[in-house]
Amino acid sequence: MVADVGMYPDQPTLCYGCRGILYTEIVVQGPQHDLHSGGYGGVAPNPIFALAEILTQLKDSQGHILIPGLYALMSPISASERALWQTIDRDFESEYRAQIVPEVLTGETEYGVIERTWARPTLEVHGIIGGFQDEGSKTVIPASARAKVSLRLVPGQTPDNVLPLLRARVAAVTPAGIKATVEPIHGGLPFYTEVTSPAFTTTMAALSEEFGKPAWAVRSGGSIPISAIFQEMLGADVFCIGFGQSSDGAHSPNEHTSISAFYRGVHALARVIDALGAMPAV
Amino acid sequence: MVADVGMYPDQPTLCYGCRGILYTEIVVQGPQHDLHSGGYGGVAPNPIFALAEILTQLKDSQGHILIPGLYALMSPISASERALWQTIDRDFESEYRAQIVPEVLTGETEYGVIERTWARPTLEVHGIIGGFQDEGSKTVIPASARAKVSLRLVPGQTPDNVLPLLRARVAAVTPAGIKATVEPIHGGLPFYTEVTSPAFTTTMAALSEEFGKPAWAVRSGGSIPISAIFQEMLGADVFCIGFGQSSDGAHSPNEHTSISAFYRGVHALARVIDALGAMPAV
Repeated sequence: MVADVGMYPDQPTLCYGCRGILYTEIVVQGPQHDLHSGGYGGVAPNPIFALAEILTQLKDSQGHILIPGLYALMSPISASERALWQTIDRDFESEYRAQIVPEVLTGETEYGVIERTWARPTLEVHGIIGGFQDEGSKTVIPASARAKVSLRLVPGQTPDNVLPLLRARVAAVTPAGIKATVEPIHGGLPFYTEVTSPAFTTTMAALSEEFGKPAWAVRSGGSIPISAIFQEMLGADVFCIGFGQSSDGAHSPNEHTSISAFYRGVHALARVIDALGAMPAV
Repeated sequence: MVADVGMYPDQPTLCYGCRGILYTEIVVQGPQHDLHSGGYGGVAPNPIFALAEILTQLKDSQGHILIPGLYALMSPISASERALWQTIDRDFESEYRAQIVPEVLTGETEYGVIERTWARPTLEVHGIIGGFQDEGSKTVIPASARAKVSLRLVPGQTPDNVLPLLRARVAAVTPAGIKATVEPIHGGLPFYTEVTSPAFTTTMAALSEEFGKPAWAVRSGGSIPISAIFQEMLGADVFCIGFGQSSDGAHSPNEHTSISAFYRGVHALARVIDALGAMPAV
Protein backbone atom coordinates (compact mmCIF):
# COMPACT_ATOMS: atom_id res chain seq x y z
CA MET A 1 0.00 0.00 0.00
CA VAL A 2 1.28 3.42 -1.01
CA ALA A 3 -0.18 6.48 0.73
CA ASP A 4 0.85 9.15 -1.83
CA VAL A 5 -2.69 9.97 -2.98
CA GLY A 6 -5.68 11.85 -1.58
CA MET A 7 -9.38 11.15 -1.30
CA TYR A 8 -12.59 13.00 -2.09
CA PRO A 9 -14.35 14.59 0.91
CA ASP A 10 -15.88 11.89 3.10
CA GLN A 11 -15.63 9.38 0.26
CA PRO A 12 -13.49 6.24 0.62
CA THR A 13 -11.30 5.83 -2.46
CA LEU A 14 -9.05 3.04 -3.64
CA CYS A 15 -6.47 3.86 -6.32
CA TYR A 16 -5.55 0.77 -8.31
CA GLY A 17 -3.49 2.36 -11.09
CA CYS A 18 -1.21 5.27 -12.02
CA ARG A 19 0.16 6.45 -15.32
CA GLY A 20 3.85 6.04 -16.02
CA ILE A 21 6.02 8.74 -17.50
CA LEU A 22 8.75 9.31 -20.04
CA TYR A 23 10.27 12.75 -19.61
CA THR A 24 12.61 14.00 -22.31
CA GLU A 25 14.32 17.04 -23.72
CA ILE A 26 14.19 17.64 -27.45
CA VAL A 27 17.21 19.65 -28.58
CA VAL A 28 17.13 21.20 -32.03
CA GLN A 29 20.24 22.53 -33.77
CA GLY A 30 20.25 24.67 -36.91
CA PRO A 31 23.02 26.97 -38.12
CA GLN A 32 26.41 26.60 -36.40
CA HIS A 33 26.02 30.04 -34.85
CA ASP A 34 23.34 32.72 -34.61
CA LEU A 35 22.58 34.51 -37.90
CA HIS A 36 21.18 37.96 -38.71
CA SER A 37 17.58 37.66 -39.88
CA GLY A 38 18.08 40.56 -42.35
CA GLY A 39 20.73 38.73 -44.29
CA TYR A 40 19.53 35.17 -43.77
CA GLY A 41 15.79 35.43 -43.17
CA GLY A 42 14.17 33.48 -45.98
CA VAL A 43 17.05 31.10 -46.63
CA ALA A 44 18.41 29.83 -43.30
CA PRO A 45 16.77 27.02 -41.30
CA ASN A 46 15.33 28.41 -38.05
CA PRO A 47 15.55 25.98 -35.10
CA ILE A 48 12.71 27.61 -33.13
CA PHE A 49 10.37 27.32 -36.06
CA ALA A 50 11.60 23.77 -36.67
CA LEU A 51 10.88 22.91 -33.02
CA ALA A 52 7.35 24.30 -33.39
CA GLU A 53 6.93 22.14 -36.51
CA ILE A 54 8.19 19.05 -34.69
CA LEU A 55 5.92 19.62 -31.65
CA THR A 56 2.82 20.07 -33.78
CA GLN A 57 3.65 16.80 -35.50
CA LEU A 58 3.86 14.92 -32.21
CA LYS A 59 0.25 15.75 -31.27
CA ASP A 60 -2.62 17.13 -33.27
CA SER A 61 -5.00 19.88 -32.20
CA GLN A 62 -7.54 17.28 -31.00
CA GLY A 63 -5.07 15.73 -28.57
CA HIS A 64 -4.21 12.66 -30.64
CA ILE A 65 -0.58 11.68 -30.26
CA LEU A 66 0.98 11.24 -33.69
CA ILE A 67 3.68 8.76 -32.71
CA PRO A 68 3.20 5.59 -34.79
CA GLY A 69 2.96 2.47 -32.66
CA LEU A 70 2.21 4.26 -29.40
CA TYR A 71 -1.46 3.39 -29.09
CA ALA A 72 -0.90 -0.18 -30.25
CA LEU A 73 1.11 -0.84 -27.07
CA MET A 74 -1.85 -0.09 -24.79
CA SER A 75 -3.41 -2.94 -22.85
CA PRO A 76 -7.18 -2.92 -23.37
CA ILE A 77 -9.37 -1.43 -20.64
CA SER A 78 -11.52 -4.21 -19.18
CA ALA A 79 -15.31 -4.11 -19.07
CA SER A 80 -15.06 -4.69 -15.29
CA GLU A 81 -13.05 -1.50 -14.93
CA ARG A 82 -15.39 0.55 -17.10
CA ALA A 83 -18.32 -0.69 -15.01
CA LEU A 84 -16.58 0.57 -11.86
CA TRP A 85 -16.10 4.03 -13.44
CA GLN A 86 -19.88 4.20 -13.92
CA THR A 87 -20.41 3.92 -10.17
CA ILE A 88 -18.46 7.11 -9.44
CA ASP A 89 -21.08 9.73 -8.75
CA ARG A 90 -19.06 12.80 -9.61
CA ASP A 91 -19.15 15.24 -12.55
CA PHE A 92 -15.46 15.39 -13.38
CA GLU A 93 -16.12 17.34 -16.56
CA SER A 94 -17.68 20.26 -14.65
CA GLU A 95 -15.10 20.07 -11.89
CA TYR A 96 -12.22 20.32 -14.35
CA ARG A 97 -13.92 23.14 -16.22
CA ALA A 98 -14.25 25.06 -12.96
CA GLN A 99 -10.59 24.50 -12.07
CA ILE A 100 -9.02 25.25 -15.45
CA VAL A 101 -9.48 28.88 -16.32
CA PRO A 102 -10.63 29.74 -18.99
CA GLU A 103 -12.88 26.73 -18.52
CA VAL A 104 -12.07 25.01 -21.75
CA LEU A 105 -11.15 21.34 -21.78
CA THR A 106 -8.94 20.12 -24.59
CA GLY A 107 -7.74 16.72 -25.67
CA GLU A 108 -9.44 13.68 -27.10
CA THR A 109 -13.06 14.68 -26.61
CA GLU A 110 -14.24 11.31 -27.94
CA TYR A 111 -13.12 9.96 -24.55
CA GLY A 112 -14.56 11.13 -21.24
CA VAL A 113 -12.50 13.09 -18.75
CA ILE A 114 -11.91 10.00 -16.57
CA GLU A 115 -10.47 8.03 -19.45
CA ARG A 116 -8.39 10.98 -20.75
CA THR A 117 -6.75 11.69 -17.41
CA TRP A 118 -6.46 8.13 -16.05
CA ALA A 119 -6.22 5.67 -18.89
CA ARG A 120 -5.04 7.43 -22.06
CA PRO A 121 -1.44 8.34 -22.82
CA THR A 122 -0.88 12.10 -23.08
CA LEU A 123 1.91 14.25 -24.44
CA GLU A 124 2.70 17.62 -22.90
CA VAL A 125 5.30 20.32 -23.45
CA HIS A 126 6.52 21.58 -20.08
CA GLY A 127 9.08 24.16 -21.13
CA ILE A 128 10.62 25.71 -24.21
CA ILE A 129 13.53 28.04 -24.76
CA GLY A 130 15.51 29.37 -27.69
CA GLY A 131 17.02 32.55 -29.09
CA PHE A 132 16.41 35.97 -27.61
CA GLN A 133 13.99 36.34 -24.68
CA ASP A 134 14.92 39.64 -23.02
CA GLU A 135 12.98 42.88 -23.32
CA GLY A 136 13.05 44.58 -26.68
CA SER A 137 14.24 43.03 -29.91
CA LYS A 138 17.14 41.17 -31.46
CA THR A 139 16.87 40.11 -35.06
CA VAL A 140 18.58 36.80 -34.66
CA ILE A 141 18.03 33.41 -36.24
CA PRO A 142 19.29 31.34 -33.32
CA ALA A 143 21.55 28.33 -33.61
CA SER A 144 19.46 26.10 -31.34
CA ALA A 145 16.30 25.66 -29.29
CA ARG A 146 15.00 23.04 -26.91
CA ALA A 147 11.83 21.83 -25.25
CA LYS A 148 10.94 19.58 -22.32
CA VAL A 149 8.38 17.05 -23.51
CA SER A 150 6.86 14.19 -21.55
CA LEU A 151 4.45 11.38 -22.23
CA ARG A 152 2.21 9.91 -19.55
CA LEU A 153 2.11 6.17 -20.14
CA VAL A 154 -0.58 3.58 -19.53
CA PRO A 155 -0.27 -0.18 -18.97
CA GLY A 156 1.54 -1.81 -21.88
CA GLN A 157 3.71 1.27 -22.39
CA THR A 158 7.08 1.71 -20.72
CA PRO A 159 9.78 4.38 -21.00
CA ASP A 160 11.89 1.75 -22.76
CA ASN A 161 9.34 0.79 -25.41
CA VAL A 162 8.10 4.35 -26.01
CA LEU A 163 11.43 6.21 -26.27
CA PRO A 164 12.41 4.57 -29.59
CA LEU A 165 8.97 5.39 -31.03
CA LEU A 166 9.30 9.04 -29.97
CA ARG A 167 12.81 9.23 -31.42
CA ALA A 168 11.70 7.69 -34.70
CA ARG A 169 8.82 10.15 -35.00
CA VAL A 170 11.02 13.16 -34.23
CA ALA A 171 13.56 11.96 -36.79
CA ALA A 172 10.81 11.49 -39.39
CA VAL A 173 9.40 15.01 -38.98
CA THR A 174 12.62 16.99 -38.48
CA PRO A 175 12.90 19.52 -41.31
CA ALA A 176 15.88 19.71 -43.66
CA GLY A 177 18.86 21.61 -42.28
CA ILE A 178 17.95 20.81 -38.68
CA LYS A 179 19.42 18.22 -36.32
CA ALA A 180 17.13 17.10 -33.50
CA THR A 181 17.92 14.80 -30.59
CA VAL A 182 15.64 13.34 -27.92
CA GLU A 183 17.37 12.97 -24.55
CA PRO A 184 15.56 10.98 -21.84
CA ILE A 185 15.60 12.78 -18.46
CA HIS A 186 13.62 10.36 -16.34
CA GLY A 187 11.04 7.62 -16.60
CA GLY A 188 8.65 5.61 -14.48
CA LEU A 189 6.48 2.58 -15.22
CA PRO A 190 2.69 2.74 -15.00
CA PHE A 191 1.10 0.38 -12.50
CA TYR A 192 -2.26 -1.33 -12.59
CA THR A 193 -3.80 -3.83 -10.21
CA GLU A 194 -6.53 -6.00 -11.64
CA VAL A 195 -9.96 -4.86 -10.39
CA THR A 196 -11.20 -8.45 -10.30
CA SER A 197 -8.42 -9.60 -7.97
CA PRO A 198 -9.37 -10.93 -4.51
CA ALA A 199 -7.15 -8.29 -2.83
CA PHE A 200 -9.04 -5.54 -4.68
CA THR A 201 -12.44 -6.89 -3.65
CA THR A 202 -11.34 -7.37 -0.04
CA THR A 203 -9.85 -3.85 0.21
CA MET A 204 -12.86 -2.19 -1.38
CA ALA A 205 -15.14 -3.98 1.07
CA ALA A 206 -13.05 -2.96 4.07
CA LEU A 207 -12.99 0.70 3.02
CA SER A 208 -16.72 0.72 2.34
CA GLU A 209 -17.43 -0.82 5.73
CA GLU A 210 -15.27 1.72 7.58
CA PHE A 211 -16.97 4.71 5.92
CA GLY A 212 -20.44 3.23 5.77
CA LYS A 213 -20.74 3.86 2.03
CA PRO A 214 -19.48 2.20 -1.16
CA ALA A 215 -15.83 2.98 -1.91
CA TRP A 216 -14.87 4.33 -5.32
CA ALA A 217 -12.14 2.71 -7.36
CA VAL A 218 -9.98 5.23 -9.18
CA ARG A 219 -6.79 5.53 -11.15
CA SER A 220 -4.48 8.54 -10.88
CA GLY A 221 -3.24 10.45 -13.90
CA GLY A 222 0.02 11.18 -12.13
CA SER A 223 2.97 8.86 -11.74
CA ILE A 224 4.17 7.03 -8.61
CA PRO A 225 6.97 4.92 -10.08
CA ILE A 226 7.69 3.10 -6.78
CA SER A 227 4.29 1.39 -7.08
CA ALA A 228 5.32 -0.47 -10.21
CA ILE A 229 8.65 -1.37 -8.60
CA PHE A 230 6.86 -2.86 -5.54
CA GLN A 231 4.52 -4.74 -7.86
CA GLU A 232 7.38 -6.18 -9.88
CA MET A 233 9.81 -6.97 -7.04
CA LEU A 234 7.28 -8.27 -4.50
CA GLY A 235 4.93 -9.90 -6.98
CA ALA A 236 2.11 -8.35 -4.96
CA ASP A 237 -1.03 -6.41 -5.80
CA VAL A 238 -0.39 -2.71 -5.14
CA PHE A 239 -2.93 -0.09 -4.10
CA CYS A 240 -2.65 3.58 -3.24
CA ILE A 241 -4.86 4.61 -0.35
CA GLY A 242 -4.60 8.12 1.07
CA PHE A 243 -6.68 10.41 3.20
CA GLY A 244 -5.50 13.90 2.20
CA GLN A 245 -8.04 16.43 0.97
CA SER A 246 -7.54 18.76 -1.97
CA SER A 247 -7.91 21.62 0.54
CA ASP A 248 -4.82 20.46 2.49
CA GLY A 249 -2.49 22.55 0.30
CA ALA A 250 -0.21 19.65 -0.64
CA HIS A 251 3.38 20.79 -1.41
CA SER A 252 2.29 24.41 -0.68
CA PRO A 253 2.92 26.84 2.19
CA ASN A 254 0.94 25.97 5.32
CA GLU A 255 0.37 22.39 4.21
CA HIS A 256 -1.77 20.62 6.77
CA THR A 257 -4.05 17.70 7.44
CA SER A 258 -7.02 17.42 9.75
CA ILE A 259 -6.90 15.44 12.98
CA SER A 260 -10.14 13.69 12.03
CA ALA A 261 -8.62 12.59 8.70
CA PHE A 262 -5.60 11.28 10.59
CA TYR A 263 -7.73 9.09 12.90
CA ARG A 264 -9.96 8.09 10.02
CA GLY A 265 -6.89 6.93 8.12
CA VAL A 266 -5.58 4.95 11.09
CA HIS A 267 -8.90 3.19 11.50
CA ALA A 268 -9.41 2.57 7.79
CA LEU A 269 -5.93 1.17 7.21
CA ALA A 270 -6.21 -1.05 10.29
CA ARG A 271 -9.44 -2.42 8.91
CA VAL A 272 -7.91 -2.99 5.46
CA ILE A 273 -4.87 -4.77 6.91
CA ASP A 274 -7.11 -6.85 9.10
CA ALA A 275 -9.28 -7.85 6.14
CA LEU A 276 -6.27 -8.65 3.94
CA GLY A 277 -4.75 -10.69 6.78
CA ALA A 278 -7.91 -12.76 6.96
CA MET A 279 -7.69 -13.71 3.30
CA PRO A 280 -6.69 -17.32 2.53
CA ALA A 281 -2.90 -17.55 1.96
CA VAL A 282 -1.88 -17.61 -1.74
CA MET B 1 23.38 58.69 -48.99
CA VAL B 2 23.54 56.29 -46.09
CA ALA B 3 26.84 54.49 -45.43
CA ASP B 4 25.50 51.63 -43.25
CA VAL B 5 26.23 48.87 -45.79
CA GLY B 6 29.27 47.03 -47.09
CA MET B 7 30.59 46.04 -50.50
CA TYR B 8 31.89 42.91 -52.15
CA PRO B 9 35.70 42.71 -52.47
CA ASP B 10 36.90 45.17 -55.10
CA GLN B 11 33.38 45.47 -56.49
CA PRO B 12 31.54 48.81 -56.48
CA THR B 13 28.03 48.32 -55.15
CA LEU B 14 25.01 50.60 -54.98
CA CYS B 15 22.22 49.65 -52.60
CA TYR B 16 18.89 51.09 -53.72
CA GLY B 17 16.54 49.31 -51.33
CA CYS B 18 16.19 47.72 -47.90
CA ARG B 19 13.48 45.64 -46.33
CA GLY B 20 11.39 47.15 -43.57
CA ILE B 21 10.54 45.36 -40.37
CA LEU B 22 7.71 44.72 -37.98
CA TYR B 23 9.00 43.20 -34.75
CA THR B 24 6.46 41.82 -32.31
CA GLU B 25 6.01 39.65 -29.29
CA ILE B 26 3.25 37.06 -29.29
CA VAL B 27 2.09 36.32 -25.75
CA VAL B 28 -0.05 33.26 -25.16
CA GLN B 29 -2.03 32.69 -21.97
CA GLY B 30 -3.68 29.44 -20.97
CA PRO B 31 -4.70 28.34 -17.47
CA GLN B 32 -4.68 31.04 -14.77
CA HIS B 33 -1.76 29.32 -13.06
CA ASP B 34 0.58 26.42 -13.73
CA LEU B 35 -1.06 22.99 -13.54
CA HIS B 36 0.28 19.50 -12.81
CA SER B 37 0.50 17.47 -16.01
CA GLY B 38 -0.42 14.27 -14.14
CA GLY B 39 -3.81 15.60 -13.12
CA TYR B 40 -4.48 17.86 -16.08
CA GLY B 41 -2.51 16.38 -18.98
CA GLY B 42 -5.09 15.46 -21.59
CA VAL B 43 -7.71 18.02 -20.61
CA ALA B 44 -6.01 21.41 -19.98
CA PRO B 45 -5.00 23.79 -22.79
CA ASN B 46 -1.20 24.03 -22.97
CA PRO B 47 0.10 27.49 -23.97
CA ILE B 48 3.45 26.22 -25.26
CA PHE B 49 1.77 23.75 -27.54
CA ALA B 50 -0.71 26.43 -28.58
CA LEU B 51 2.17 28.78 -29.41
CA ALA B 52 3.75 26.07 -31.57
CA GLU B 53 0.41 25.62 -33.33
CA ILE B 54 0.11 29.38 -33.91
CA LEU B 55 3.67 29.70 -35.25
CA THR B 56 3.25 26.84 -37.69
CA GLN B 57 0.09 28.51 -38.98
CA LEU B 58 1.92 31.79 -39.65
CA LYS B 59 4.37 30.16 -42.08
CA ASP B 60 4.37 26.80 -43.80
CA SER B 61 7.32 24.45 -44.13
CA GLN B 62 8.10 25.85 -47.60
CA GLY B 63 8.54 29.39 -46.30
CA HIS B 64 5.17 30.74 -47.45
CA ILE B 65 3.72 33.22 -45.00
CA LEU B 66 0.15 32.26 -44.19
CA ILE B 67 -1.13 35.74 -43.31
CA PRO B 68 -4.04 36.56 -45.63
CA GLY B 69 -3.55 39.87 -47.46
CA LEU B 70 0.19 40.12 -46.83
CA TYR B 71 1.42 39.30 -50.33
CA ALA B 72 -1.31 41.42 -51.97
CA LEU B 73 0.30 44.54 -50.46
CA MET B 74 3.58 44.00 -52.33
CA SER B 75 4.52 46.42 -55.07
CA PRO B 76 5.50 44.47 -58.18
CA ILE B 77 9.17 44.00 -58.96
CA SER B 78 9.97 45.83 -62.21
CA ALA B 79 11.49 44.20 -65.26
CA SER B 80 14.25 46.84 -65.11
CA GLU B 81 15.22 45.70 -61.63
CA ARG B 82 15.16 42.00 -62.55
CA ALA B 83 17.42 42.78 -65.53
CA LEU B 84 19.91 44.42 -63.17
CA TRP B 85 19.95 41.33 -60.94
CA GLN B 86 21.01 39.29 -63.98
CA THR B 87 24.17 41.38 -64.30
CA ILE B 88 25.43 40.39 -60.85
CA ASP B 89 28.10 37.80 -61.45
CA ARG B 90 27.97 36.00 -58.15
CA ASP B 91 26.65 32.62 -57.05
CA PHE B 92 24.66 33.65 -54.00
CA GLU B 93 23.14 30.21 -53.65
CA SER B 94 26.54 28.55 -53.18
CA GLU B 95 27.79 31.37 -50.96
CA TYR B 96 24.84 31.07 -48.63
CA ARG B 97 25.12 27.30 -48.58
CA ALA B 98 28.76 27.64 -47.55
CA GLN B 99 27.92 30.12 -44.77
CA ILE B 100 24.91 28.36 -43.28
CA VAL B 101 25.93 25.14 -41.68
CA PRO B 102 24.53 22.53 -42.34
CA GLU B 103 24.41 23.91 -45.85
CA VAL B 104 20.72 23.66 -46.37
CA LEU B 105 18.76 26.62 -47.69
CA THR B 106 15.13 26.86 -46.72
CA GLY B 107 12.33 29.15 -47.73
CA GLU B 108 10.44 29.74 -50.95
CA THR B 109 12.59 27.74 -53.32
CA GLU B 110 10.48 28.85 -56.30
CA TYR B 111 12.28 32.18 -55.92
CA GLY B 112 16.04 32.61 -56.21
CA VAL B 113 18.18 33.52 -53.23
CA ILE B 114 18.41 37.18 -54.33
CA GLU B 115 14.65 37.57 -54.44
CA ARG B 116 14.13 35.66 -51.18
CA THR B 117 16.58 37.76 -49.20
CA TRP B 118 16.03 41.14 -50.87
CA ALA B 119 12.54 41.41 -52.26
CA ARG B 120 10.26 38.90 -50.53
CA PRO B 121 8.71 39.38 -47.09
CA THR B 122 9.93 36.85 -44.54
CA LEU B 123 8.73 35.78 -41.13
CA GLU B 124 11.16 34.63 -38.46
CA VAL B 125 10.94 33.56 -34.83
CA HIS B 126 13.83 35.10 -32.87
CA GLY B 127 13.14 33.84 -29.40
CA ILE B 128 10.74 31.68 -27.48
CA ILE B 129 10.23 31.00 -23.79
CA GLY B 130 7.69 29.30 -21.61
CA GLY B 131 7.37 26.92 -18.67
CA PHE B 132 10.28 25.09 -17.13
CA GLN B 133 13.74 25.46 -18.71
CA ASP B 134 16.21 24.46 -16.00
CA GLU B 135 18.07 21.18 -15.76
CA GLY B 136 16.02 18.13 -14.95
CA SER B 137 12.28 17.91 -15.08
CA LYS B 138 9.13 19.57 -13.82
CA THR B 139 5.81 18.15 -14.91
CA VAL B 140 4.05 21.46 -15.34
CA ILE B 141 1.49 22.71 -17.81
CA PRO B 142 2.53 26.37 -17.74
CA ALA B 143 0.14 29.29 -17.60
CA SER B 144 1.81 31.23 -20.44
CA ALA B 145 4.45 31.31 -23.15
CA ARG B 146 5.75 33.94 -25.55
CA ALA B 147 7.75 34.33 -28.73
CA LYS B 148 9.51 37.18 -30.53
CA VAL B 149 8.35 37.17 -34.15
CA SER B 150 9.29 39.61 -36.89
CA LEU B 151 8.37 40.16 -40.49
CA ARG B 152 10.76 41.72 -42.98
CA LEU B 153 8.69 43.96 -45.22
CA VAL B 154 9.04 44.97 -48.86
CA PRO B 155 7.75 48.06 -50.69
CA GLY B 156 3.99 48.36 -50.31
CA GLN B 157 4.13 46.83 -46.83
CA THR B 158 4.46 48.91 -43.68
CA PRO B 159 4.40 48.08 -39.97
CA ASP B 160 1.03 49.84 -39.84
CA ASN B 161 -0.65 47.92 -42.64
CA VAL B 162 0.87 44.54 -41.71
CA LEU B 163 0.24 44.53 -37.93
CA PRO B 164 -3.56 44.24 -38.28
CA LEU B 165 -3.13 41.36 -40.74
CA LEU B 166 -0.80 39.54 -38.35
CA ARG B 167 -3.18 40.12 -35.45
CA ALA B 168 -6.15 38.87 -37.44
CA ARG B 169 -4.27 35.71 -38.42
CA VAL B 170 -3.13 35.00 -34.88
CA ALA B 171 -6.70 35.51 -33.64
CA ALA B 172 -8.01 33.17 -36.34
CA VAL B 173 -5.63 30.33 -35.48
CA THR B 174 -5.54 30.61 -31.69
CA PRO B 175 -6.88 27.36 -30.22
CA ALA B 176 -9.82 27.20 -27.81
CA GLY B 177 -8.97 27.96 -24.20
CA ILE B 178 -6.00 30.16 -25.15
CA LYS B 179 -5.71 33.94 -25.25
CA ALA B 180 -3.04 35.30 -27.59
CA THR B 181 -1.93 38.92 -28.03
CA VAL B 182 0.47 40.44 -30.56
CA GLU B 183 2.45 43.34 -29.11
CA PRO B 184 4.45 45.49 -31.55
CA ILE B 185 7.99 46.14 -30.29
CA HIS B 186 9.43 48.18 -33.13
CA GLY B 187 8.95 48.85 -36.80
CA GLY B 188 10.72 50.39 -39.77
CA LEU B 189 9.58 51.13 -43.31
CA PRO B 190 11.20 49.51 -46.30
CA PHE B 191 12.84 51.88 -48.78
CA TYR B 192 13.25 51.57 -52.50
CA THR B 193 14.70 54.01 -55.01
CA GLU B 194 13.59 53.53 -58.60
CA VAL B 195 16.37 51.95 -60.67
CA THR B 196 15.34 53.98 -63.71
CA SER B 197 15.76 57.31 -61.90
CA PRO B 198 18.39 59.77 -63.18
CA ALA B 199 20.09 59.84 -59.77
CA PHE B 200 20.45 56.04 -59.90
CA THR B 201 21.98 56.09 -63.37
CA THR B 202 24.34 58.92 -62.46
CA THR B 203 25.50 57.26 -59.23
CA MET B 204 26.01 53.88 -60.90
CA ALA B 205 28.11 55.52 -63.59
CA ALA B 206 30.27 57.42 -61.08
CA LEU B 207 30.94 54.27 -59.03
CA SER B 208 31.76 52.25 -62.14
CA GLU B 209 34.18 54.92 -63.34
CA GLU B 210 35.98 55.11 -59.98
CA PHE B 211 36.55 51.36 -59.83
CA GLY B 212 37.05 50.81 -63.52
CA LYS B 213 34.36 48.13 -63.68
CA PRO B 214 30.56 48.06 -63.83
CA ALA B 215 28.94 48.67 -60.46
CA TRP B 216 26.36 46.22 -59.14
CA ALA B 217 22.95 47.39 -57.98
CA VAL B 218 21.74 45.54 -54.91
CA ARG B 219 19.09 45.60 -52.25
CA SER B 220 19.75 44.66 -48.65
CA GLY B 221 17.66 42.14 -46.80
CA GLY B 222 18.22 44.04 -43.57
CA SER B 223 16.45 47.18 -42.41
CA ILE B 224 17.79 50.75 -42.25
CA PRO B 225 14.64 52.63 -41.21
CA ILE B 226 16.31 56.09 -41.41
CA SER B 227 16.57 55.63 -45.21
CA ALA B 228 12.82 55.64 -45.62
CA ILE B 229 12.54 58.62 -43.28
CA PHE B 230 15.05 60.59 -45.39
CA GLN B 231 13.20 59.60 -48.54
CA GLU B 232 9.86 60.72 -47.13
CA MET B 233 10.95 63.91 -45.38
CA LEU B 234 13.41 65.15 -48.00
CA GLY B 235 11.52 63.90 -51.04
CA ALA B 236 14.91 62.71 -52.32
CA ASP B 237 16.22 59.50 -53.87
CA VAL B 238 18.11 57.54 -51.21
CA PHE B 239 21.04 55.18 -51.73
CA CYS B 240 23.21 53.22 -49.37
CA ILE B 241 26.87 53.15 -50.39
CA GLY B 242 29.45 51.60 -48.11
CA PHE B 243 32.98 50.26 -48.33
CA GLY B 244 33.22 47.78 -45.50
CA GLN B 245 34.21 44.19 -46.22
CA SER B 246 32.61 41.10 -44.72
CA SER B 247 36.06 40.36 -43.22
CA ASP B 248 36.02 43.61 -41.19
CA GLY B 249 34.27 41.94 -38.25
CA ALA B 250 31.41 44.42 -38.06
CA HIS B 251 29.95 44.74 -34.52
CA SER B 252 32.49 42.13 -33.33
CA PRO B 253 35.66 42.29 -31.22
CA ASN B 254 38.62 43.78 -33.12
CA GLU B 255 36.37 45.44 -35.69
CA HIS B 256 38.50 47.22 -38.27
CA THR B 257 38.60 48.63 -41.77
CA SER B 258 41.51 48.83 -44.20
CA ILE B 259 43.27 52.10 -44.98
CA SER B 260 42.92 51.39 -48.70
CA ALA B 261 39.14 50.97 -48.30
CA PHE B 262 39.04 54.27 -46.43
CA TYR B 263 40.78 56.18 -49.25
CA ARG B 264 38.78 54.29 -51.85
CA GLY B 265 35.61 55.39 -50.12
CA VAL B 266 36.71 59.02 -49.94
CA HIS B 267 37.52 59.03 -53.66
CA ALA B 268 34.38 57.19 -54.69
CA LEU B 269 32.01 59.34 -52.65
CA ALA B 270 33.69 62.54 -53.91
CA ARG B 271 33.15 61.32 -57.44
CA VAL B 272 29.49 60.44 -56.76
CA ILE B 273 28.79 63.82 -55.15
CA ASP B 274 30.55 65.55 -58.01
CA ALA B 275 28.45 63.67 -60.58
CA LEU B 276 25.19 64.27 -58.72
CA GLY B 277 26.07 67.98 -58.42
CA ALA B 278 26.52 68.19 -62.17
CA MET B 279 23.00 66.87 -62.81
CA PRO B 280 20.45 69.38 -64.06
CA ALA B 281 18.48 70.86 -61.16
CA VAL B 282 15.05 69.22 -60.64
